[in-house]
Amino acid sequence: MTHHIHRHQHHLAWDNSIPPVATIDSGEIVTFDCLDASNGQVTAGSTVDAIHSFDMSKLDQINGPIFVRDAKPGDVLEVEIVDIKIATWGWTAIIPNFGLLHEEFPEAKLKIWQLDQDQGFAWFKPNQIRIPIRPFTGECGVARGLPGSFSTIPPYRTGGNIDTKYLTKGSKLYLPIECEGALFSIGDGHAAQGDGEVCGTAIETPVVVSVRLTVIRGESVSHVTSPCLLTRTEDRSSTRYYSVLGIADDMREATKQAVRQMIAYLVQNKQLTREEAYMLCSVAVDIRATQVVDMPNYTVGAFLPLNIFANVETK
Amino acid sequence: MTHHIHRHQHHLAWDNSIPPVATIDSGEIVTFDCLDASNGQVTAGSTVDAIHSFDMSKLDQINGPIFVRDAKPGDVLEVEIVDIKIATWGWTAIIPNFGLLHEEFPEAKLKIWQLDQDQGFAWFKPNQIRIPIRPFTGECGVARGLPGSFSTIPPYRTGGNIDTKYLTKGSKLYLPIECEGALFSIGDGHAAQGDGEVCGTAIETPVVVSVRLTVIRGESVSHVTSPCLLTRTEDRSSTRYYSVLGIADDMREATKQAVRQMIAYLVQNKQLTREEAYMLCSVAVDIRATQVVDMPNYTVGAFLPLNIFANVETK
Repeated sequence: MTHHIHRHQHHLAWDNSIPPVATIDSGEIVTFDCLDASNGQVTAGSTVDAIHSFDMSKLDQINGPIFVRDAKPGDVLEVEIVDIKIATWGWTAIIPNFGLLHEEFPEAKLKIWQLDQDQGFAWFKPNQIRIPIRPFTGECGVARGLPGSFSTIPPYRTGGNIDTKYLTKGSKLYLPIECEGALFSIGDGHAAQGDGEVCGTAIETPVVVSVRLTVIRGESVSHVTSPCLLTRTEDRSSTRYYSVLGIADDMREATKQAVRQMIAYLVQNKQLTREEAYMLCSVAVDIRATQVVDMPNYTVGAFLPLNIFANVETK
Repeated sequence: MTHHIHRHQHHLAWDNSIPPVATIDSGEIVTFDCLDASNGQVTAGSTVDAIHSFDMSKLDQINGPIFVRDAKPGDVLEVEIVDIKIATWGWTAIIPNFGLLHEEFPEAKLKIWQLDQDQGFAWFKPNQIRIPIRPFTGECGVARGLPGSFSTIPPYRTGGNIDTKYLTKGSKLYLPIECEGALFSIGDGHAAQGDGEVCGTAIETPVVVSVRLTVIRGESVSHVTSPCLLTRTEDRSSTRYYSVLGIADDMREATKQAVRQMIAYLVQNKQLTREEAYMLCSVAVDIRATQVVDMPNYTVGAFLPLNIFANVETK
């Protein structure tokens, strides 16, 4: 049996006192119709005014919760992404006071994307820069065991806003269960994102996502004390990358350096504004910690895949 | 003309007062014969006693420096990795008081590897776990402009111990020049490493590495204020990964969580000791920051490629 959860069946906090919208058996599939992470405040016809008038308290709604029979605290919930379909449009924004470099990007910006999942990519700049479409949901989690209401913006050990781009169709996520019934919720559809999601938004889009929820017990999953993932990485084996390494005694500071410098590279060499470059980093550049041991300075790289440029450049 | 730098032509600090061992024209190739990062203190026949008796002041020696004519402060040095050959053996160690989880791994351990570059991989456990060989040098840099002597352990904006596994044959590294002649040095050969090098050592090995050093000027490289890299990533497009996500308000703490939990996974599911698992993470597991914006909690993943297991498992 497949269960359908509608757009309006959402909530705005991780709170184990919120009543379930459905109860299922372990192993069943649930299909969720999810609005984008703005909760409908941005539409295909929006301008930057939509960002100016954002009601932040409505953002990052999640659909659910789903009560899974026999799921108990200490068990693990396997979430298999069975299918995910994106809408025909999406958005990326710079939101004031949000994002890795928010002090340097105080002004709101909004970009609306045309999306075609079958085409496999979306144009950032027509005939110049295209982004591979790799749909996933930024939010995927179960309720916390602690009483109270917790924001859906940060992720927790029980998952939530992990914004991990590898949660694509065919992947499996493992979550530590802290409540009776697990109380699973999902949302925040993304058509594409780079590791880091540095400007704070990906290609945000409404999605219809189907997941199979299965309770797992036993020694083989006793290491699952925070989210774990079985996945493939992207097929970019023949791609060249341009990478900038940030070096600092704090990994976040090193990340900021790398992104700041990658933005400078894109502005200088790819005819982008600073804001365009920042958004492009958020949807296409990957953040990798190349070394975390050479005290006191650590190295974090921003990796730009060069095949996003229609005239593939090698330098 | 090709210049040859011998094993003994090394130094132990970034210090712009160290006399050059060779002077070259921009665009010339230099071949360096480099001892491993222990400076010969570990050999193919070593036991863990070699780690107990380490003279830490001799570690991470670098060969050079090379004076490049016409290189001036403000220019950029392009370092093209023309070729790199590894020895027939290597080592990985847990060194007390070093590495991401050093509080949890106080005891010295040493693993000696048999290496065959043509074979393309090295066995971690015979017929069970094999690591793709991807040779590079952990150290690659130019002298700092500041007077004085700086340890070769941490990297700087001028490069050095960046321990970035993508610096393989065919890659190009761009370094900001701070001294007349650039004063380039290289060392710390690695046969393989994961992003992060979490236990503090990779597959350490002597190497013979050839690089072409070219001075670049102009607007297109004015963003190069720390090391930048033109590279390919590994061809693992058909590989599945098992990933553990660490979630914390500090990226380094999230990294520690993810690695700690990956070690638990490997011990539980792959019949490894904790120390073996930690070393395996250092040579094969990649650290990626999947989101750095969902305040106050950031997500850092440890990604284990499942094709290192001879019986490829999917879970």
